[in-house]
Amino acid sequence: MEIKVLKKVLAAQEEDAKKNVDFFNEKKVVAINLMSSPGSGKTTLIDKTLEALAGEMGFAVVEGDIETTMDAERLAKHDVQITQINTEPFGGDCHLEAGWIRSAAESFDFSRIDVLFVENVGNLVCPAEFELGVDANVVLLSVTEGEDKPAKYPLMFRVSQLCLVTKTDLLPFLDVDMALLEKNVSKSNPQLKMLELSSKTGDGFAEWLDYLRAKVAEKKS
Amino acid sequence: MEIKVLKKVLAAQEEDAKKNVDFFNEKKVVAINLMSSPGSGKTTLIDKTLEALAGEMGFAVVEGDIETTMDAERLAKHDVQITQINTEPFGGDCHLEAGWIRSAAESFDFSRIDVLFVENVGNLVCPAEFELGVDANVVLLSVTEGEDKPAKYPLMFRVSQLCLVTKTDLLPFLDVDMALLEKNVSKSNPQLKMLELSSKTGDGFAEWLDYLRAKVAEKKS
Repeated sequence: MEIKVLKKVLAAQEEDAKKNVDFFNEKKVVAINLMSSPGSGKTTLIDKTLEALAGEMGFAVVEGDIETTMDAERLAKHDVQITQINTEPFGGDCHLEAGWIRSAAESFDFSRIDVLFVENVGNLVCPAEFELGVDANVVLLSVTEGEDKPAKYPLMFRVSQLCLVTKTDLLPFLDVDMALLEKNVSKSNPQLKMLELSSKTGDGFAEWLDYLRAKVAEKKS
Repeated sequence: MEIKVLKKVLAAQEEDAKKNVDFFNEKKVVAINLMSSPGSGKTTLIDKTLEALAGEMGFAVVEGDIETTMDAERLAKHDVQITQINTEPFGGDCHLEAGWIRSAAESFDFSRIDVLFVENVGNLVCPAEFELGVDANVVLLSVTEGEDKPAKYPLMFRVSQLCLVTKTDLLPFLDVDMALLEKNVSKSNPQLKMLELSSKTGDGFAEWLDYLRAKVAEKKS
């Protein structure tokens, strides 16, 4: 009987994800779900991306957090529509769900939006289990977290289409084996595209911006 | 009806946690539950602690991971009893539970053990929701993760008795505001003891070892 309940919940999740696919296609907006451990640089990536592409593209952000609006506040300086989802009233959930994203997104003025960033709750495990119906799942992995993480948290890397290896400016001060890290990423998901960047120095950032430009061009075509 | 089921599960968890308290007291072993984001340095902390206290204390380790034995293998060089719990057969759970710890611990030869480390699944959210019946919950927070994490993931800091701020050797290369980090830790839990250390350089490590010695002395008395 418990299994039946679980199946119903999963079916409802899938249905909600499919509705999001249609919704984002209709609005011609590229939806990007950013996932990672806490502190891997999701908010900083969004911050620097909004700064770099101001005037070129329109953005909206759905911020997922357990109980604060700290990340939303960090982004408030930009000319961008932001909706905060706090999961605390729903039991402090460790992930976002498709239905919540659509509820949050429905209030946006999509005439000015090319890219919608979803910043998921900082967690390398649970968010990977919830399909959101976005155009791309992007997993961030900070070089400070170690080369073994793709092997230890494989589902997150399996469900993602792009892996951003962040904070590369710290590489000179770490013992991390980048060749092994890359091998572990490829092993967890051979189709997973990988970009290395530092939001602090800007190294590798141009490739990330080109990735976004290509996604937007594809969606509008 | 769903709420009833949930309550039953929680009651069983509490019961299991209480059994662990009795079990660890009977064995006169200090059980320490290490929790953090992936890559905050839990395994490295255990590794360096076993090295520093070899001959002085006896250790056992319960390793929690979703599907690999990589951390257990990193510790295998030490004269230490290790049991691996993989949560993948149980749905890839994002946390450890009290009953699993006891099952894992029951096979240990406790005549040689003063401290039992439980290395939880790398996750700053979910493990905090599961009481394990240990002597101390210790949360690790790497300085690379940013000063805002205690505010954003407050439950983890509320349920912990000690916060180890790790990787302090990287401070010269980061913009992290340590005064704000400390303030955020105190705000999330005014009783939370805080130690700053680098497992790499050994800075601050002596205080951590003294903390363990005091815990062991208290348990034996």
